[in-house]
Amino acid sequence: RKMALFEQPGERLIVLLNAGNLATTQSVVSLLRLRSQPQHGGSQHLMGVASLYDAAELVGQTLKEVVARDTSNGGTLSQGVDFGANFLVGGQIRGERPRLFHVYPQGNFIESTEDTPYLQIGESKYGKPILDRVVNFDSSLNEAAKCTLISFDSTIRSNLSVGLPLDMLLYKADSFAPADPHRITAEDPYSNRLRQGWGSGLKRDFAKLP
Amino acid sequence: RKMALFEQPGERLIVLLNAGNLATTQSVVSLLRLRSQPQHGGSQHLMGVASLYDAAELVGQTLKEVVARDTSNGGTLSQGVDFGANFLVGGQIRGERPRLFHVYPQGNFIESTEDTPYLQIGESKYGKPILDRVVNFDSSLNEAAKCTLISFDSTIRSNLSVGLPLDMLLYKADSFAPADPHRITAEDPYSNRLRQGWGSGLKRDFAKLP
Repeated sequence: RKMALFEQPGERLIVLLNAGNLATTQSVVSLLRLRSQPQHGGSQHLMGVASLYDAAELVGQTLKEVVARDTSNGGTLSQGVDFGANFLVGGQIRGERPRLFHVYPQGNFIESTEDTPYLQIGESKYGKPILDRVVNFDSSLNEAAKCTLISFDSTIRSNLSVGLPLDMLLYKADSFAPADPHRITAEDPYSNRLRQGWGSGLKRDFAKLP
Repeated sequence: RKMALFEQPGERLIVLLNAGNLATTQSVVSLLRLRSQPQHGGSQHLMGVASLYDAAELVGQTLKEVVARDTSNGGTLSQGVDFGANFLVGGQIRGERPRLFHVYPQGNFIESTEDTPYLQIGESKYGKPILDRVVNFDSSLNEAAKCTLISFDSTIRSNLSVGLPLDMLLYKADSFAPADPHRITAEDPYSNRLRQGWGSGLKRDFAKLP
């Protein structure tokens, strides 16, 4: 599962999505979770940070910590393996608007803006054209969700190493409702209808063009 | 210009397309051209090879030769620059069917087949989904050309460093006609009509989906 949730309904929802080295991403999420428990007594943790910006910084720090630990034996054991990982950190903490960050393998990060209303990690290129054509800052949540599923379908078709299931979470601004992620499998009726409709629509459009 | 032609109407047409380090690709094409001249008197050259397979092998050899020459000063001068390049080698030599090869930066190469009826080089991922949905071994030349232009449009929209003009050559099997490449600029009426029609069709399809 590439999605990890840190939530306190009514107060905060922080969603982590990851791509890259699985040993790295699992360790980052495990450490973040461990340190978020009350009995742990650490200083900064995801259940306590005051802003999503602080959350992104903490994810970046933890990522650097894990990569430094796992590569500490140096070049001899690394054997050309890429220990890097990317994270998306999104959600809302009471007192702020919803925010979305992309944490790079180096631990630094960028935030989405009106000009860049979506962020992608992982195998992102195959699915980018449809996002560029359809999604903008004023897209509704439903439109964005529909386009995301079509984007993933394009990726899945063009790269056999990407596949179902997909984990998807829709969050309504200022709701602070308990997170209700949806797992999309090969049997999901909506996403199958979408995939077939999109594919046949494209073929029809293509045939109609001069 | 990323397209180079070696032709003898009635006998052979060899088309080279390249992507990657411009110093490398220019030198490879220059050497191949120089050695194809009658007065040069070399052994193997593109105007003399008996098959497209031999042409691909020759392009690969020349590519290795140029990269070896340009990197011969070793790591101190390379400064992290990637000297690599990819070539597509396509066309027809009398006595063979039309063939298409992809020459890798290492100089080895693969040939297109019924199962892989198209080959891409360069910034290929953005434009691959539409090819995967539409093009197959039985596609007509016109369909393939239309889909190629749509594929490039997707790439141009998603990566600002890719842009017009495009050089396109359509070759009819067994014609051995003089090559008539077409340069597509921002003013090309057909490709503009295609781009607009495709973009508005996609938006319409998207809006119609549930």
